[in-house]
Amino acid sequence: MARTLHELAETLDLPVQGPDLEIKGVASLELAGEHDLSFLSSPKHASLLAATKAGAVILARDHADQIPRALISDNPSLDFARALRLFEKEQGCLSGHSEQAFIHPQAQVHPSAIIYPFAFIGPRAVVCENCRLFCGVYVGEDCRVGAHSTLYPNVVLMARTILGSNVIIHPGTVLGGDGFGYTPSPHGLEKVPQVGHLVIEDHVEIGANCAIDRAALGVTRIGRGTKVDNLVQIGHNVAVGADCILVSQVGIAGSSKLGDRVTLAGQVGIADHLHLGDDCRVGAKSGVNRSLEGCKDYLGSPAVEARKFMRIAASWNRLPDLVKRVATLEKELKALKTTKSEDSHEQN
Amino acid sequence: MARTLHELAETLDLPVQGPDLEIKGVASLELAGEHDLSFLSSPKHASLLAATKAGAVILARDHADQIPRALISDNPSLDFARALRLFEKEQGCLSGHSEQAFIHPQAQVHPSAIIYPFAFIGPRAVVCENCRLFCGVYVGEDCRVGAHSTLYPNVVLMARTILGSNVIIHPGTVLGGDGFGYTPSPHGLEKVPQVGHLVIEDHVEIGANCAIDRAALGVTRIGRGTKVDNLVQIGHNVAVGADCILVSQVGIAGSSKLGDRVTLAGQVGIADHLHLGDDCRVGAKSGVNRSLEGCKDYLGSPAVEARKFMRIAASWNRLPDLVKRVATLEKELKALKTTKSEDSHEQN
Amino acid sequence: MARTLHELAETLDLPVQGPDLEIKGVASLELAGEHDLSFLSSPKHASLLAATKAGAVILARDHADQIPRALISDNPSLDFARALRLFEKEQGCLSGHSEQAFIHPQAQVHPSAIIYPFAFIGPRAVVCENCRLFCGVYVGEDCRVGAHSTLYPNVVLMARTILGSNVIIHPGTVLGGDGFGYTPSPHGLEKVPQVGHLVIEDHVEIGANCAIDRAALGVTRIGRGTKVDNLVQIGHNVAVGADCILVSQVGIAGSSKLGDRVTLAGQVGIADHLHLGDDCRVGAKSGVNRSLEGCKDYLGSPAVEARKFMRIAASWNRLPDLVKRVATLEKELKALKTTKSEDSHEQN
Repeated sequence: MARTLHELAETLDLPVQGPDLEIKGVASLELAGEHDLSFLSSPKHASLLAATKAGAVILARDHADQIPRALISDNPSLDFARALRLFEKEQGCLSGHSEQAFIHPQAQVHPSAIIYPFAFIGPRAVVCENCRLFCGVYVGEDCRVGAHSTLYPNVVLMARTILGSNVIIHPGTVLGGDGFGYTPSPHGLEKVPQVGHLVIEDHVEIGANCAIDRAALGVTRIGRGTKVDNLVQIGHNVAVGADCILVSQVGIAGSSKLGDRVTLAGQVGIADHLHLGDDCRVGAKSGVNRSLEGCKDYLGSPAVEARKFMRIAASWNRLPDLVKRVATLEKELKALKTTKSEDSHEQN
Repeated sequence: MARTLHELAETLDLPVQGPDLEIKGVASLELAGEHDLSFLSSPKHASLLAATKAGAVILARDHADQIPRALISDNPSLDFARALRLFEKEQGCLSGHSEQAFIHPQAQVHPSAIIYPFAFIGPRAVVCENCRLFCGVYVGEDCRVGAHSTLYPNVVLMARTILGSNVIIHPGTVLGGDGFGYTPSPHGLEKVPQVGHLVIEDHVEIGANCAIDRAALGVTRIGRGTKVDNLVQIGHNVAVGADCILVSQVGIAGSSKLGDRVTLAGQVGIADHLHLGDDCRVGAKSGVNRSLEGCKDYLGSPAVEARKFMRIAASWNRLPDLVKRVATLEKELKALKTTKSEDSHEQN
Repeated sequence: MARTLHELAETLDLPVQGPDLEIKGVASLELAGEHDLSFLSSPKHASLLAATKAGAVILARDHADQIPRALISDNPSLDFARALRLFEKEQGCLSGHSEQAFIHPQAQVHPSAIIYPFAFIGPRAVVCENCRLFCGVYVGEDCRVGAHSTLYPNVVLMARTILGSNVIIHPGTVLGGDGFGYTPSPHGLEKVPQVGHLVIEDHVEIGANCAIDRAALGVTRIGRGTKVDNLVQIGHNVAVGADCILVSQVGIAGSSKLGDRVTLAGQVGIADHLHLGDDCRVGAKSGVNRSLEGCKDYLGSPAVEARKFMRIAASWNRLPDLVKRVATLEKELKALKTTKSEDSHEQN
């Protein structure tokens, strides 16, 4: 675990400044000790450099003269992430296929995969090389889990769910459950069988306790590289593009389509059957009830362009006063008309 | 699985049009191939009929002349749902009671029930005929699971929870947990023991990763035929009527009562101790802070009648401009009063 | 279970009124039967006393003459909570360490702890005296579960999560999962390893299906005595103070800090890197996008002081009308200016 500053410079391929030092950990500038590596993410925090006790700091060349020991980087956030990987302890402690797991005789599990106790793998399911399935994971019939993927404890894949490679699913998330579909009948609501499936592409990461439904017909799809936070709901037949960011507690209703690199902040709701263009960004707690053009920021419920919402919200603060001002205007105008009419009368 | 159009017509008891054809699957009009069955849900999508490659379509008689092969229906959505049931592959692959499950000697499990590995059934719990309990299901003491009910993986029933027959609970949902009740004491917040229970009536379906609490005293109840989507929260002592629809991420606070056929759209919040009348419908993301009359549509936070909210939201867009217009009016009126007073002065 | 009114008076150390009676259960004033104990929480419900069939009621001395049998209390809600504890049936039915659990040889589990089937305890994890770990619980490497704590079914503690004593975690909750951190790279979003951990202090209770992430660097912390409802999301590096109340479906984004005794009502969202002062209270569904002073009530999205929001929301109802009134004013003023100018013209 312990390594020296100069060894880190070599591993990360970054220019080093200052004498060598044993580096034992990583920490923020405020909390770092004399054997910790830290980083300066943005010039606006540069004032923290004066007081930091960090043994060394990853930072841009501009700030190197403010600190004795440094690793010089064009992208300190990215290089610090790379450094963190060297100090990370990976979750998990077992190898092989536990005898306390249930692996169906018709399942295909690669010998290099790690299967924890109390995991279940159904018939015709395929689990590829270097996958890790933790306790309580359920992999239904005909699922596929691509290489190097991790399913943390109690993740559930309902039948026919397809995961790409290098996918990470955090604990308790349910993938490929029934979509929410009913149709009125003389005997009450009749369930519409959900016969589609769910595809999660490569390099997707999904947080804890989410629910992503399979399609009614066809496919629900989460695009390559997309990152989903905790407690997110994605309805049946939704298509999320590549490299999107869906923050915690977002909900996307059935059949809506997101382009690539769309960002939805926390607690955003998207109604059904909408289209959100590439690179559009929706601010926290917004409610989207119409399709949105790409490359723009939106905010509010109902969501409008963010700049417009800011002006509306600023006006709300003045609204109670505005109501009074309009009443005053009405009174004064009435008075003016009265005196004017009296004036006219006098003149006549 | 494969069957012919004429066989389907007989099974579904629908008039058929056109020569027979092998039907291998079901799909939307856009994606259907020449051996797929599709459906026209509404006349407004009738333009899709010209381009569809579907082998046959379930549709109303009015549109039958636009397609060579059809099943004629008075309710195409409902009849397509019935057709889907013929093509559906049910989840699950095991039968019997797994030896890797834990069944308490004082539990009563019907021989026809399917109990997966790693399921737990506590003392005095009753599991009726044809139930299916998937992996990781926990059924606490004195629970009852009615006939033909399905508990998908990792569903949790805390002690004394009662489920009717034909109930479906999706993965990860927690039923009958402690309500959120504390009372201030000299030593901080004191927990109020939650000694009530939870009743889920017949034909209810509940989505993934929901939480429905048992009552503090008495009972929390979900009425017959009600459908609940994923990630929904229902507090202690809530009563939901029959045939309600609660969409994803809805939250209902303690002791509120919903009538029958109430619809709450996604992310709606209902405060505590309120009453919502039969057939009322609350639009997405609304926040309800007062009791609502039935048979009406509501929207907004705080929720008002939907039509009213639409007018309010339309006014918001004009609000920043309105602030300026009022300032202009004030200035002009002042100017007018000044000139008027000067006029008067001149006249005197 | 059955006990008499006079025995209860002695156990709870409360003055008793009326002859002794066997007490078999507890219920609300409306539903109580003649052998039930009930309580009057607040003088505003005193009218229920006339009709109640309760065998005895816990109430303030002021109301004692309205009922034959009573336990007299200065704090009826708290004393009723104490009484409920006598009638509560605790969840659970097993003792000892189940042979169907997985306990790593390097884990340290106190002999008095109860470990259910299908629980997993990883290496170097410590489970202290009188803990109860239900089915499907996962305790990762190097975790610690303090004395007298309960982890209900399917609770997940990722590696290095630390729980104090007398902690209760409801089913399906995930503690110490990865924070949501990515940094742009030439190859898309790069995961920032989350090397911190999560600390839950003594006497904390957390609801079902929540997600509380561990820190990116350093620690996420939930303070002593804080109570968290179901489906709550708490991001990495958040610090929640002591004795806070976080109601269902709340979301707190990364690095925000809450003081002590903060209350967040249902579905509230708190943006990242904010500070909420001691004793501040945020109303249901609010969206907080700036730091808040303590000891105040807030409401709305964006949240403002509650009283102010009430006035704004009241104004919304008048807004569509206000738009019309301003248009009328403009028209009338214009008319007035015209006639005035004509008058002037005439006069000239």
